[in-house]
Amino acid sequence: MEVKARAPGKIILAGEHAVVHGSTAVAASVNLYTTASVRLPSSSDKDDIVKLQLKDLALEFAWPVSRIKEALGGFVGPISTPTSCPAECLKTIASLVEYQNIPEAKIKLASGVSAFLWLYSSILRFVPVDVAITSELPLGSGLGSSAAFCVAISAALLALSGSVNVDQGHCGWMVCEDELVLLNKWAFEGEKIIHGKPSGIDNTVSTYGSMIKFRSGSLDLIKSNMPLKMLVTNTKVGRNTKALVAGVSERAIRHPDAMISVFNAVDSISKELSILLQSSAHDDMSLTEKEEQLAELTEMNQGLLQCMGVSHGSIETVLRTTSKYELVSKLTGAGGGGCVLTLLPNLLSGTIVDEVIAELESCGFECFIAGIGGKGAEISFNDLA
Amino acid sequence: MEVKARAPGKIILAGEHAVVHGSTAVAASVNLYTTASVRLPSSSDKDDIVKLQLKDLALEFAWPVSRIKEALGGFVGPISTPTSCPAECLKTIASLVEYQNIPEAKIKLASGVSAFLWLYSSILRFVPVDVAITSELPLGSGLGSSAAFCVAISAALLALSGSVNVDQGHCGWMVCEDELVLLNKWAFEGEKIIHGKPSGIDNTVSTYGSMIKFRSGSLDLIKSNMPLKMLVTNTKVGRNTKALVAGVSERAIRHPDAMISVFNAVDSISKELSILLQSSAHDDMSLTEKEEQLAELTEMNQGLLQCMGVSHGSIETVLRTTSKYELVSKLTGAGGGGCVLTLLPNLLSGTIVDEVIAELESCGFECFIAGIGGKGAEISFNDLA
Repeated sequence: MEVKARAPGKIILAGEHAVVHGSTAVAASVNLYTTASVRLPSSSDKDDIVKLQLKDLALEFAWPVSRIKEALGGFVGPISTPTSCPAECLKTIASLVEYQNIPEAKIKLASGVSAFLWLYSSILRFVPVDVAITSELPLGSGLGSSAAFCVAISAALLALSGSVNVDQGHCGWMVCEDELVLLNKWAFEGEKIIHGKPSGIDNTVSTYGSMIKFRSGSLDLIKSNMPLKMLVTNTKVGRNTKALVAGVSERAIRHPDAMISVFNAVDSISKELSILLQSSAHDDMSLTEKEEQLAELTEMNQGLLQCMGVSHGSIETVLRTTSKYELVSKLTGAGGGGCVLTLLPNLLSGTIVDEVIAELESCGFECFIAGIGGKGAEISFNDLA
Repeated sequence: MEVKARAPGKIILAGEHAVVHGSTAVAASVNLYTTASVRLPSSSDKDDIVKLQLKDLALEFAWPVSRIKEALGGFVGPISTPTSCPAECLKTIASLVEYQNIPEAKIKLASGVSAFLWLYSSILRFVPVDVAITSELPLGSGLGSSAAFCVAISAALLALSGSVNVDQGHCGWMVCEDELVLLNKWAFEGEKIIHGKPSGIDNTVSTYGSMIKFRSGSLDLIKSNMPLKMLVTNTKVGRNTKALVAGVSERAIRHPDAMISVFNAVDSISKELSILLQSSAHDDMSLTEKEEQLAELTEMNQGLLQCMGVSHGSIETVLRTTSKYELVSKLTGAGGGGCVLTLLPNLLSGTIVDEVIAELESCGFECFIAGIGGKGAEISFNDLA
């Protein structure tokens, strides 16, 4: 039997950086997915092996189940109560990962492999499995690839373990509504292994889909009533998120009055944006008017991010290029490179979208057309017997 | 006898647009001058003629003194009490200007010629003169060329009329300190003819030089203790100042909470900037540290202007170009084209400045290196006898 689970990436629509200083931010799912396929090996496979394939990276890891069980068996708790991986256990996991000889260039993936081992041990409890991961999300570019990885793996493992109720008779993808709380908690435990102190936003968006308004640690799911399509441009410029966050804080120390006003402006924009997105189609505004409002708020937010000093030459190039086509863009996430969002109005012709993409890709960027605010984690069963 | 008067242009260092909504702004003089030379015709010139030459534009206007006197004699008041040109009189002046057949392409200059006629009639009271104007200031690009025109003309006419006390024995340029209030008022009357409802900032900066902090109609002269050099880049993109100002107001109506915070942020930046500029050299900060602070405030202000929606592709091009050299820029004035300021740190090598200028000029822009916060109006006498 094979279980597939897919989980979407996320974008920050408004409020990145300012959220660290108490402002509201809005995140949304993006229909680029990470998919985890988990298969119980056929009975002809003699060896009890746990296999993890990262297909896009052409990496494959394998451990004898006995070895994992011996190392981690003493640490795992009940499936129904997701627990953090203890520091001691992290060391043990690290030795299991080291044993795999990850190429130096891909060493950042080690924490993802560690997260996998903790989720596998905690949820599936030492059953031999083949796990294959594929993803449409670029790594480390702020689209929540690590959270989608944790959500997809956790969802597939929970489904296979029978810990969540999923209608196996159903064809195609299905959402495991009732079990999302448990799924989200496990994914968060994986994120903690990868990121140390994640905000929980990425895994929550990836689990529940749609959009989330968040502020000072409190998250509210919001239901968008506005079909949103965006061009996501990956500048491929790597950045140091911690340094960017620290840079904004230092600027806020040097210029407290101005920066408090800037964070307040961002807070107002995020709140207005979330009201706009939730307003229904038969409200006063037409879709085109809503799109214009959204574009204006997006342009304003980008100006405020530039005011915080987190833009970058590559981001400005995307802005200049898209503005030639009268399209509005903003950075999403940490800035300093990473990804840029460009609003694509519903009535925009495909020809123009193609031209914009061609021009951006000629600068060496990578473009994705993405639907925003769609479904979260989904599961699909395949009876291979 | 010939009197020359020169008056500088101005730049807005911080706070443009937000000042319309109650924020503080800071303006400074820029050492690009408009010069007015006023000469009493030699006694061999039989005809009583008033001649105005706009040398940079290769335009020359002439009126019989008798004609001007007949038209405007009934309207002028005392020199010591600058008065506004009455609406009726403006019509009469318009007919004097029309009579000159200004080329269609230069019709915008008509209001400047009208201002000249009012200042000439009020101050010199129908004496035949030759007036020649030259200017280093680009017209209509936000550098205060019209104010410098009014200040230079008023200063030269006041000096020639003997209404201000200037030490004629002195060589070179001299500042007529005591008479600046009168000069500024007359120049303001000229500005009103050109602009309708000017703020009074441009003529005040051009008259007094140095820097001015202004908010809700109140102006404070400030004395800078920081040598400032800037690259002023004229994008040569014409813009509609009224439409840009209206655009910001409309945005403020659509998004009041966010925009109030944006204006507050600008207010804080302007206040911080004016304290920074006034702090003396032996304060805690080195010049380099002060320059870094100034650069940061300038970058923040530019981000906020982008948030207001008054930037422009040409401005972004200047920003991108100068940022490659790690130089910080911001638009100055109305935005939507016009001029861009780039801070030139005192220790910056001339080679780099030359490279930046070459790159900007290859985009079709015009660059000036300018000292900021220098002298205001100055007068020089030349005894031609």
